[in-house]
Amino acid sequence: MSNSAPQTLKGFRDFLPTEKRKRDFVLKKVIEIFERFGFAPLETPTLEYASLLLGKYGDEADKLVYTFTDNGDRQVGLRYDQTVPTARVLCQYQNELPKFFRRYQTQTVFRADKPQKGRYREFTQCDIDIFGSTSPLADAEILACTYFAYKNVGYPNIELRINDRQTLLATLEPFATPNITVFSIIQSIDKLDKMSQTDVAAELVRKGLSGEVAEEVLHSIHSAEMSANLSEIMANAIELGVPEAALKFTSSLARGLDYYTGMIFEVILADYPVGSCGGGGRYDHLIEQLGGPNVPAVGIAFGFDRMIEAAEQLKLIPADAVGPQVLVTIFNEEFATESLRLAARLRLAGVNTEVYPGTEKLAKQFKLADQKNIPYVAVIGEEEAKQNTVMLKTMANGTQELMSADDVVRFLRPV
Amino acid sequence: MSNSAPQTLKGFRDFLPTEKRKRDFVLKKVIEIFERFGFAPLETPTLEYASLLLGKYGDEADKLVYTFTDNGDRQVGLRYDQTVPTARVLCQYQNELPKFFRRYQTQTVFRADKPQKGRYREFTQCDIDIFGSTSPLADAEILACTYFAYKNVGYPNIELRINDRQTLLATLEPFATPNITVFSIIQSIDKLDKMSQTDVAAELVRKGLSGEVAEEVLHSIHSAEMSANLSEIMANAIELGVPEAALKFTSSLARGLDYYTGMIFEVILADYPVGSCGGGGRYDHLIEQLGGPNVPAVGIAFGFDRMIEAAEQLKLIPADAVGPQVLVTIFNEEFATESLRLAARLRLAGVNTEVYPGTEKLAKQFKLADQKNIPYVAVIGEEEAKQNTVMLKTMANGTQELMSADDVVRFLRPV
Repeated sequence: MSNSAPQTLKGFRDFLPTEKRKRDFVLKKVIEIFERFGFAPLETPTLEYASLLLGKYGDEADKLVYTFTDNGDRQVGLRYDQTVPTARVLCQYQNELPKFFRRYQTQTVFRADKPQKGRYREFTQCDIDIFGSTSPLADAEILACTYFAYKNVGYPNIELRINDRQTLLATLEPFATPNITVFSIIQSIDKLDKMSQTDVAAELVRKGLSGEVAEEVLHSIHSAEMSANLSEIMANAIELGVPEAALKFTSSLARGLDYYTGMIFEVILADYPVGSCGGGGRYDHLIEQLGGPNVPAVGIAFGFDRMIEAAEQLKLIPADAVGPQVLVTIFNEEFATESLRLAARLRLAGVNTEVYPGTEKLAKQFKLADQKNIPYVAVIGEEEAKQNTVMLKTMANGTQELMSADDVVRFLRPV
Repeated sequence: MSNSAPQTLKGFRDFLPTEKRKRDFVLKKVIEIFERFGFAPLETPTLEYASLLLGKYGDEADKLVYTFTDNGDRQVGLRYDQTVPTARVLCQYQNELPKFFRRYQTQTVFRADKPQKGRYREFTQCDIDIFGSTSPLADAEILACTYFAYKNVGYPNIELRINDRQTLLATLEPFATPNITVFSIIQSIDKLDKMSQTDVAAELVRKGLSGEVAEEVLHSIHSAEMSANLSEIMANAIELGVPEAALKFTSSLARGLDYYTGMIFEVILADYPVGSCGGGGRYDHLIEQLGGPNVPAVGIAFGFDRMIEAAEQLKLIPADAVGPQVLVTIFNEEFATESLRLAARLRLAGVNTEVYPGTEKLAKQFKLADQKNIPYVAVIGEEEAKQNTVMLKTMANGTQELMSADDVVRFLRPV
């Protein structure tokens, strides 16, 4: 090697095959449902004009955008999220895009942020959104697609916590003062799922409310009732197949981002209680604020990295999602032909098959299957070639069985 | 809109749904075969240390690498190809990776190149490689996987033009002089598929050969015979299922890149004659030259953009790869429930289904199906609700049929 150990940049990740396959499995499962709900894929460039990316989410966010000057002296930047490029797409192609454009997008985004556990400088965002409709039917479609996407990965207990930003604003606005905005109160309320009532009340007091008013705030939140809008959305979601028990009206749910204008929601996986695994809502003015046309929107951002962690911990990734099913060995050059023909037949039948690329001793070839976690190994040696058979070894228990090539194909063929 | 028309950077592309679905279709088809042949997915970061990317392919290539200084004063750069990061991976994880690592990688790469027709600044590379084996079996696996990957997309006439870099070198070395290197002769020979013999001879003369020697060069190329190495590779590829007619020994094939050390090959789609749609070969020293460990390698880079163009022109993308199968309309609020239930049933049965997110007049809802090329539209109005039926309209011919929800599901369910 010419250099000392090469490395990835801090905050960036390699995904080696085992990890990448897990990610691909989860992605495939959610995309299957996105397509099932009529969402269409969109891909935008990694680089955009910096002017498009900056000034959209405030000064703090701007500091996190990767920008530089390219060879043509243009100020350019790396994709910071998928919403700003989508706002550009909605504007640039408004005559081409269908009404009620519903798109999914699953690309990586870049944040020049301090890396820490679970926070990366490049990570996959996974978004679905419906543009152009203010109907509660669109909100219900988003809820239902969300529920079935998580369900399709296999998570057992999916909970959608739902609230209405309008109700929340109406409930909390009376408590706002010149010193404490309603959004500041919302930010504190948003912590009720992680902090005790007492601590949230204390925070409100620190922000300038009296103890009594802070108590009143909490009381109002807990006694808030579901809006007519939310009732209709939830009723529609139920007709679309979401179990009633999965939909939880949560009057304290606030979601930090101040651009939401209607329904807001978060996804909780009860068996992986690390907070929200995704969230979204209605944001009818944001697209225009981001430089796009004046279109209402509703959507969700899936917490892709957390979904992978949860799927892994809950053992939802099937074994056959992790590599070839069989290793076909090459006994020696003389009998290579038989082995290659067997591999060709297995592959034609849809069996993921690796051929050992060499003629090393069989023990070495078995070692490769072991190292790669390949569950079956096929051998055609002198005896097998003479008798027109295959020796198939099951790696899990070491059993070996002589069978015809036909039977090997039949045995390994995916159902 | 707050700004004048926003745009993509020159040389960068948006992929709107129709285009993106075509790309996803082709990618899915080739990845299916990569997995069938035991290749494993790898993903590396978009950003790397600039020192990793620079000085690998010469000064001209270095000028095309996007580099900049990040907030932490590190010199960083955008992925220029997939081989350099893979060389890093082979080095960084040498104790974790299996022997005979065979990986596929399908990410975008960046070139600060002058954009022109068919040349972009961000484009998808699609590579498979086997590392660690010098056996002709590995070369044959690459040829076979290549053939079946193209075949799985549906291209009708796939031709693999194959040569041996060693034979080529041995044939041409006698003609090298202090003024014209063997690689310079190879570069001219490489043009024989686009230029006439006379023109190639003229170019060799301009480079300093006499007319007579130039003729001899061409004669030697055309009378070169297949190497024993190549015969063995091709025999193995045939056992692995590649039709003999698809394998064309082509003694004039040179491939421009001077890092090849053995078999070289290109993929030609006879029905889309725009030159090579992919190519590769054996490169036993490159990984070490790129800073990786000393491992032999053989692989191919698929010409992804050309494959998309060819698939489109040859009409290989099936209609059902381009969006939802049915639009379920919402007749009015009163009968919304019936429509939502039908949508839920269709989706459960695997039918990609869009629900109209509103209660506009039916004519408007039909217009959406038309605009989105959705082949069927389902309507449940007052009469249908009363009779427990669905009106299903076939958009292609305008026929309408009343049927039960059961029959709609049965009719649209994918086979």
